[in-house]
Amino acid sequence: MSGKTRQPSLVIVNTGDGKGKTSAAMGIALRGVARGWRVGVVQFIKSAKWKTGESKLADRLGIDWWNTGDGWTWEADDLETSARLGREAWALATQLIGAGDHQLLVLDEITYPMTLGWIDTGEVVNVITNRPSGVNVVLTGRDAPDEILAIADTATEMRKIKHVYDQGIAAKKGIDF
Amino acid sequence: MSGKTRQPSLVIVNTGDGKGKTSAAMGIALRGVARGWRVGVVQFIKSAKWKTGESKLADRLGIDWWNTGDGWTWEADDLETSARLGREAWALATQLIGAGDHQLLVLDEITYPMTLGWIDTGEVVNVITNRPSGVNVVLTGRDAPDEILAIADTATEMRKIKHVYDQGIAAKKGIDF
Repeated sequence: MSGKTRQPSLVIVNTGDGKGKTSAAMGIALRGVARGWRVGVVQFIKSAKWKTGESKLADRLGIDWWNTGDGWTWEADDLETSARLGREAWALATQLIGAGDHQLLVLDEITYPMTLGWIDTGEVVNVITNRPSGVNVVLTGRDAPDEILAIADTATEMRKIKHVYDQGIAAKKGIDF
Repeated sequence: MSGKTRQPSLVIVNTGDGKGKTSAAMGIALRGVARGWRVGVVQFIKSAKWKTGESKLADRLGIDWWNTGDGWTWEADDLETSARLGREAWALATQLIGAGDHQLLVLDEITYPMTLGWIDTGEVVNVITNRPSGVNVVLTGRDAPDEILAIADTATEMRKIKHVYDQGIAAKKGIDF
């Protein structure tokens, strides 16, 4: 038609210091569900965001959901446990990617374990590059490593123009978490 | 607690030339549904994105959905009709905002009718500023006018780092539309 080729699957990266990295990934997940895809979400960081309500909604939408970061937070004083859980989350993601059962896998906030050195960026690149052909992968988190941007088909920086927190407003249930 | 005040509702703007503006809005909509909110989406631009599948999914999620841009496209040669439909979409949005029945209203791609001069940016500012206190509003689209950014609580620029289209890859069903 237009001389464009169609790739069997894409790697999408949402990075930057602004809002919308995870929300946009969830929007893509929703779109995948709408198309009848099997969709999986692995959350690498425990957070109040997308917790109970969203997990329930994920059930309702048939999205497979793993809060692998459960049990640790940024404030965790036991960093060794945090690192171990991060590695376990990546082991799970590796397994899911390799299985090829999902048309879309969201690796939410996976950049943090990489930048913290808990998981090896080269290995992430390797697993994603050699994934089964039909598995679309979305990676989110600040400071996506250059190696990850290099294998991305589409990469977007969510850049903060302004944020309500700057004005001393507390996070709003339903919008921010 | 922390000395932060809690606003009854927020104005969120997703702008920029990158991907994720609408997806992030849909992620916020999903989050709203998860919290039991009544959520409405007004799409100002007709597009293949979020069409059939997403509308069905919106039904399933109880999201009220209006494709007000139906019947015109960017390629439309009848700009007068486009402008009229844009104004009708805004009339609908004005009504929905004023009614206060929704805890979240997504005005998707509303920036285009503003930048094209079909609807008055000052009037949009006025309606949003004077909205019922519990109505959160998300506005998306490139080139958000400064007056809109000024009334935003949170504004994010989705900046393109790279995009699959740049490499001659066609849009992918399930990811892009």
